Amino acid sequence: MLKPNARYAQLKDAYLFNTIYRKTEEYREKNPGKKILRMGVGDVSLPLCKAVIAALHEAVDDQACAATFHGYMPEVGAPSLRKAIAGYYGKMGASVAPDEIFVSSGACDDLGDILELFDGENTVMVIEPAYPEYVDTNILAGREVIHLNAGEENSFLPAPNEAAKADILYICSPNNPTGAAFNRVQLQAWVDFARENGAVILFDAAYEVFIEEEEIPHSIYELQGADQCAIEICSLSKTAGFTGTRLGYTVVPRNLVRGGMHLRDMWSRNRETRTNGVSYILQKGAEAVFTPEGQRQIRENLSVYKENASYFMEALDAAGIWYCGGRNSPYIWMKCPDGMSGWEFFDELLEKIQVVGIPGDGFGDCGRGYFRFSTFGSPQETKEAANRLCALLKKR
Amino acid sequence: MLKPNARYAQLKDAYLFNTIYRKTEEYREKNPGKKILRMGVGDVSLPLCKAVIAALHEAVDDQACAATFHGYMPEVGAPSLRKAIAGYYGKMGASVAPDEIFVSSGACDDLGDILELFDGENTVMVIEPAYPEYVDTNILAGREVIHLNAGEENSFLPAPNEAAKADILYICSPNNPTGAAFNRVQLQAWVDFARENGAVILFDAAYEVFIEEEEIPHSIYELQGADQCAIEICSLSKTAGFTGTRLGYTVVPRNLVRGGMHLRDMWSRNRETRTNGVSYILQKGAEAVFTPEGQRQIRENLSVYKENASYFMEALDAAGIWYCGGRNSPYIWMKCPDGMSGWEFFDELLEKIQVVGIPGDGFGDCGRGYFRFSTFGSPQETKEAANRLCALLKKR
Repeated sequence: MLKPNARYAQLKDAYLFNTIYRKTEEYREKNPGKKILRMGVGDVSLPLCKAVIAALHEAVDDQACAATFHGYMPEVGAPSLRKAIAGYYGKMGASVAPDEIFVSSGACDDLGDILELFDGENTVMVIEPAYPEYVDTNILAGREVIHLNAGEENSFLPAPNEAAKADILYICSPNNPTGAAFNRVQLQAWVDFARENGAVILFDAAYEVFIEEEEIPHSIYELQGADQCAIEICSLSKTAGFTGTRLGYTVVPRNLVRGGMHLRDMWSRNRETRTNGVSYILQKGAEAVFTPEGQRQIRENLSVYKENASYFMEALDAAGIWYCGGRNSPYIWMKCPDGMSGWEFFDELLEKIQVVGIPGDGFGDCGRGYFRFSTFGSPQETKEAANRLCALLKKR
Repeated sequence: MLKPNARYAQLKDAYLFNTIYRKTEEYREKNPGKKILRMGVGDVSLPLCKAVIAALHEAVDDQACAATFHGYMPEVGAPSLRKAIAGYYGKMGASVAPDEIFVSSGACDDLGDILELFDGENTVMVIEPAYPEYVDTNILAGREVIHLNAGEENSFLPAPNEAAKADILYICSPNNPTGAAFNRVQLQAWVDFARENGAVILFDAAYEVFIEEEEIPHSIYELQGADQCAIEICSLSKTAGFTGTRLGYTVVPRNLVRGGMHLRDMWSRNRETRTNGVSYILQKGAEAVFTPEGQRQIRENLSVYKENASYFMEALDAAGIWYCGGRNSPYIWMKCPDGMSGWEFFDELLEKIQVVGIPGDGFGDCGRGYFRFSTFGSPQETKEAANRLCALLKKR
C-alpha cells in the first residue's frame, strides 16, 4: 500500500501568496466599485525590453524552419548563454566560469531541486523572516530547520552565532521580504562561518540588480573563499521582468567539495537526469538581457521601480514609521503602527484604503508586526497607494 | 559538516544519452570526412507547425506592451490551456477535468518532481528495459527499485505478477525504448493489480499520439478505475516537436487518495511551493496545438515520422531480424545479430556504416542484445540509414 509523503500535513494549508490573492478577491467581489491597488506580490508590471522582444521573435522564427530549428538543448544551458552570464559576473568582480553556471526555468524551481544534492540528515538554517519556499521545501524533504531570528535590533541582518550552526545556510541579500542587504564585512563573516563549519550557503541573489551602494556585494563570489562554500541562485524575473517569461541560473563552483564529492559534477549529473534543458526561445531572449543594449534597456525599467520605492519611503518618513529596504531593494519592510499584527494591518489597509501588501507574519513568526510592500507596480498606482497610506497613517 | 547525497555514487558515471553523444563526437573528430546519420536520441527534426509559430509570435508581442503583459502565471497552468487539454482528453474518451491537469516545463521535469508526493519508504517497480530517469530519480531518493524484466517471450509487454508488487509502478506505453504498446485488456490488468495492492501507477504517455490501432488506449484514464490509481505524465515534445521548446502536462485525478490524503491537492500545494508556473509564451504556443488547425498540422509532421519507421521496418523485414515497435511508436527495437551486445553493435554500426542508435543495454540489463532506433530524423537521412543498415545486415 502506497504511503503518501505525510510531511505535507506539516505545511500551512495554503501557500502565503495564494492566501493573499484569495482574501483580495473576496473583498473585490463584495466591493465591486472600489479600486484595489495591489502592492503585495513581487510581480513586475513593465513589459519586456525591446532587445529581449526582438531576440524572442527571432528565436521563434528559428523554430519555424528545419535549417534553424532547435531540438533538445543541453541540460545545463546553452553555451552562449552560460558565457554571457559568466561575462556579467566578471563585470561584478566575481570570477565564475561558464561551466559553473546552470541555466534553469527560474530560481523558484532550482531552490527546490538543488536540495537533491544534500543528504536528508543535514540541518538547515533559515534567517527569518524568510521567503516561505526555503522552509516548505525542507519540511517536505524531512530536514530539521533552525530559525535564526532577524529583527530591528540587528537591522534585520543578523551575524552568525552558535545558534546558527547548520549544514545548509540560506542567505537572501538584498533580502526578501525585508529589503535589508548585507555589506561586504557582514557577508564575509557568514562565508567564514560556513567554511569553519563545513556548511554550504544557498545564496539567493534574485534582487542583486537593485543594489546601489558600493559596499553591498552583488554576488557572494565577490568575497574571499565563497567559491568553496556557496551556491548562488539568481533569476531574470526581477532583473528583466521575466516573472511570466521564466529563466534563472544557478552557480555551483568547481571548488565546492564536501565529503570528497564535487557538488558541481553532482549538479551536472542531476540536470542530465532531471531535466531536458530550458526552452531555446527563452534562452535566446535571456541572452539579449546581457548585451550592452539589453543592459541599458532593463536599467530604464529598474529606475521606474526605484522611483516607486521612493514614494513609499517618503510616505513612511512623513508618518514617522520605522522601515528598512527600498534603497538597495524593491521591497519596503515597515513596522505596523500601534503594535498591530501584520494580518490586522492587512485587513485595515484593504478595508480603508484598498491597498494590498503582505503581512510580515507570512514570512515566519518574527515577521509578526511588520508589513511588506513591493515596488513593482505601475508608477501611477504606486504613487496613489503611497499617498493613501500616508494619509491613513497620519490620521491615526 | 554538510553531507552530500551519497547516492550519486550509485548512479552510472554519465547519463546514457550523454555517453552516446561523447562516443559519436570522438568518432566524428577522428573521421572528419564521414557523414554520420544520428538515429539515436529521440529528438525531433521537423520545425514547429505554423499555428504554434503564430501563437508564439503573438504571445511575444503581448509581453512587449504593458496592457497585454503577463507576469507570474498560475503555478498549476493557465486556465485556458488546462481547459484545452481537458478537451483533448474528452475526445479520447477519457474524462479528465481541467483542475486535474497541471502544466509543466516538460515530462522529464515532472517525472522527478512527482516523487515528492510519496514517502521515501515506498518501493518502486520498473518494467525493464526502461527510460533511465525512472531508476535514477528513485536511486537519488533512496527508494528500493524492483526490476520486472520484459523480453521477447512476452513481446516486451509483461503482465503483472507477484514479483511486480510495489507501491509505485512505472508504465510507459507506447514504450520507450521498445516501442511495444499495451492493449486495453493488458493495461486493464495493470490497473486492477494497482488497485488491489493500493499502488499508484505513474503512466508515461509521451508517445500516445503515435498510436494507430483501435485496441491500444491513448490514455490510462480510458480504463475502468484508473482515476483511482494512476497519475499520467505527458508532453508535447514528440506530439508537436517541443523537445527544444518545452511544455508538458501531468494529470493527478481528484479520486486518487492514499492514506486519507488527496494526491491532487498535495500536488497543487507542491506546485505552489516549488514553481512559479510555466512561461506565458510557451503556454500560448501549446494552446495552439490543441486547436483543430494545430491538430491537423502536427499530424502532417507525425506522418513523416511514421514513414521513417516504415523504412527501418522494411530493412529489418528484408534482413529477417526480429524487432518490435514502429507501428504505434516512433521507436524500433531490434535484436542485435549473431548474439552481439548492444554496445558491440553500436560500435559496428558507427565504424562500418556511420549510423548511430542506442544500445539496449543502456536501458537496463535485460535490454542487452537489443538496439533502439528513433524515427525522428529527416526522411532523407532516415531512408539512407535504413538502406545502409539493410546492406550491412544482409552482408553478414
